[in-house]
Amino acid sequence: MKELKHLHLDIPKSDKKRVIIIGGGFAGIQVAKGLKNKGFQVVMLDRHNYHTFQPLLYQVATAGLEPDSIAGALRPLFENYKDFYFRMARVTGIDTENSKIKTLVGELRYDLLVIANGSKTNYFGDQEMYKRTFPMKQLPQALDLRSHMLQNFEQSVMSPDPDEQDRLTNFVVVGGGPTGVEVSGALGELKKHVLPNDYPDLDFKIMNLHLVDAGPRLLAGMSEKSGDKACKYLKQFDVDVRLNTRLESYDGKTVKLTDGTIIPAKTVIWAAGVKGNIIDGLPESMIERGRILVDEHNLVKGTDNVYAIGDIGFMKTESTPNGHPMVAQVAMQQGVRLAKNLILQGKNKAMVPFAYRDKGSMATIGRNRAVVDLPKLHFGGLFAWMVWMFIHLISIIGFRNRLVVFSNWVWNYFTYDRGTRLIIRTFLRNDRYRPGDTI
Amino acid sequence: MKELKHLHLDIPKSDKKRVIIIGGGFAGIQVAKGLKNKGFQVVMLDRHNYHTFQPLLYQVATAGLEPDSIAGALRPLFENYKDFYFRMARVTGIDTENSKIKTLVGELRYDLLVIANGSKTNYFGDQEMYKRTFPMKQLPQALDLRSHMLQNFEQSVMSPDPDEQDRLTNFVVVGGGPTGVEVSGALGELKKHVLPNDYPDLDFKIMNLHLVDAGPRLLAGMSEKSGDKACKYLKQFDVDVRLNTRLESYDGKTVKLTDGTIIPAKTVIWAAGVKGNIIDGLPESMIERGRILVDEHNLVKGTDNVYAIGDIGFMKTESTPNGHPMVAQVAMQQGVRLAKNLILQGKNKAMVPFAYRDKGSMATIGRNRAVVDLPKLHFGGLFAWMVWMFIHLISIIGFRNRLVVFSNWVWNYFTYDRGTRLIIRTFLRNDRYRPGDTI
Repeated sequence: MKELKHLHLDIPKSDKKRVIIIGGGFAGIQVAKGLKNKGFQVVMLDRHNYHTFQPLLYQVATAGLEPDSIAGALRPLFENYKDFYFRMARVTGIDTENSKIKTLVGELRYDLLVIANGSKTNYFGDQEMYKRTFPMKQLPQALDLRSHMLQNFEQSVMSPDPDEQDRLTNFVVVGGGPTGVEVSGALGELKKHVLPNDYPDLDFKIMNLHLVDAGPRLLAGMSEKSGDKACKYLKQFDVDVRLNTRLESYDGKTVKLTDGTIIPAKTVIWAAGVKGNIIDGLPESMIERGRILVDEHNLVKGTDNVYAIGDIGFMKTESTPNGHPMVAQVAMQQGVRLAKNLILQGKNKAMVPFAYRDKGSMATIGRNRAVVDLPKLHFGGLFAWMVWMFIHLISIIGFRNRLVVFSNWVWNYFTYDRGTRLIIRTFLRNDRYRPGDTI
Repeated sequence: MKELKHLHLDIPKSDKKRVIIIGGGFAGIQVAKGLKNKGFQVVMLDRHNYHTFQPLLYQVATAGLEPDSIAGALRPLFENYKDFYFRMARVTGIDTENSKIKTLVGELRYDLLVIANGSKTNYFGDQEMYKRTFPMKQLPQALDLRSHMLQNFEQSVMSPDPDEQDRLTNFVVVGGGPTGVEVSGALGELKKHVLPNDYPDLDFKIMNLHLVDAGPRLLAGMSEKSGDKACKYLKQFDVDVRLNTRLESYDGKTVKLTDGTIIPAKTVIWAAGVKGNIIDGLPESMIERGRILVDEHNLVKGTDNVYAIGDIGFMKTESTPNGHPMVAQVAMQQGVRLAKNLILQGKNKAMVPFAYRDKGSMATIGRNRAVVDLPKLHFGGLFAWMVWMFIHLISIIGFRNRLVVFSNWVWNYFTYDRGTRLIIRTFLRNDRYRPGDTI
């Protein structure tokens, strides 16, 4: 990454305390909102100019929704904020000694730092998997997977080799968490209801879907009942679920599983785990399991003005020895709490410790099927699916896209259609349409 | 372009006549629809898997609409067609002697060939312009321009150099046809109503918009009255319109015009013209002005089974010495006519010559402004703008996206907002986020 010397991170001086927020995700947005016009100068940095509603990312990857339905530009969220600055810049280092951060466009001093830059795909150090599999954590990755998948089908109708056809139409999903389960369900729906209309000359029996998880059940973060139901629903969508199984090797053409199974597949989706986006400069002592150790106020251990919230923060307490789950709910609640705490601190009042209020969790598995865990209630099926839809629709408030998402879903439901089956590949200047041009 | 030897263009044999249609645009789609289950085997080839509604491409480039609102997958259009085959493949050669076409995935014999692959940006042989300017003819190009434009603004708030800020926020549009006029108007609207909210720390007086045309007036294909009105409307959106002026040189940083003006600008949009997508293999005698010479039945001169329709066809007759305008209306009408003629021919009946029915033309210039030319009536202003909206909404019938487009427009109108201001750049595998990562 080369430094961009012609640009500078130049924020006007202010007599207010400067809060730098790294990351405009679920956590960072809540902090900024909570601090709106409360006597702080707030600077938010993100390498993207938009926020992604990640729970629906799999719908972009499977041609159900367009990117703008699940992502929104960050700047419009903060219109009319006083002394607020957004900068699209990647933070490359943190210097807690001198209270400043480093970016490719220069350094910036802070009075208070909020690290809220979330998590990234965890390949557990496996370079081969990093190179050959499809991650599902960012919008461009989901778009890439969508185009790749559709291009595979376009190629398979032109392939004279049954083995190659097999490889092109098989999908292996690694990881049975919500992302793995939801993307498998959506692929099952595509196989059953959508793709056969598009490719009448293909026999869809050759399209095989496999979901592999190292653990003994799916959706480890949810109730056992929900995990079992998800497994049952996936089987209804022709997904071969293999528990207690790992991916042993993958060369881009053939998957080997630890149970000895060999699957020819050109598409492996890697949803096996995430890890914190650790930025250089924090001492090793502050980091555990790829996350930043914080106390119950999200204050980073060993500092007095650095906070870490959301996926990146590891609040290791007696009641949460493994920290909180890396989900949007925790991130949002920590953001809200931290903003209030910083305001309390400014008034020399005591901070309130963070207490997670688990509102429940859910996952959808294709058409008409979902599982929902509420604190005292677990249920599945059609009603769960309707709850899932309703909750997700109201959750993307703030994006203006509820109407668009809703009309897409209604359309998809009644027509068994998927609207966005476009193969839009890389546009490279001077080398115009890369893959679109090659066939 | 390397050949893809593992793929084959293998279409089942049939005792019906095989019609190959090159291109799934306005013209090609109409031919396929007209020939539906009429005793032909129809094979459609396109290098993309989707059709683009090009009249609204500028809205994608200026963050008004998402790609799927103006593009639709081709396959769903032809569901339930008998003996119809779509193949995503680029045609690289035509062999009229042996009645076959060549592609990167093999050759295919035809009984009847319909060339309907449209036009591409015309740089008039200027390699510098090809390398440095932004074309506006394809979806990935429009997306690239959108990201580039927004990234320029993100950089300009971090630029300490006023000259660089100037370069980042200036736009030069070359070509005063509908594309140039509409994109200029949309940029003017962004400047006036949208971007200042996003970038409160930028003084938008530094953002200058220039529209340059070599001819004496705008919209040369429309009435003089409309051209003059368009010019007036553009000035209301702060666009500097320069007629009788050409771009003399551009090095990526500085534009020089033939009238001596020097404009610092990192964005030059090239809308100066189009030319036919000529495929190798047709004799020189069949080509004139970059288009294929056809008779009044769209039959290519010197052949008896090859037709060219839409932008690529040059129907040079006494009444149309310069051919027909390269617009969607001509393409669609020629497609409809040709399908009927091929059916007539199959019944040994005489073909009917093509007669263009000009339904009028129009262009919109930002918010509340448009110009409309009907055969006997020219008008502009708010009413013209409403007519423009209505016509475009009903024209994208067949795409399911009318509701989405309409709700986007209603939203944009009342909120002065643009929904899709996302910077989504190239995803390169193994070199993940290219430009998104660099700042």
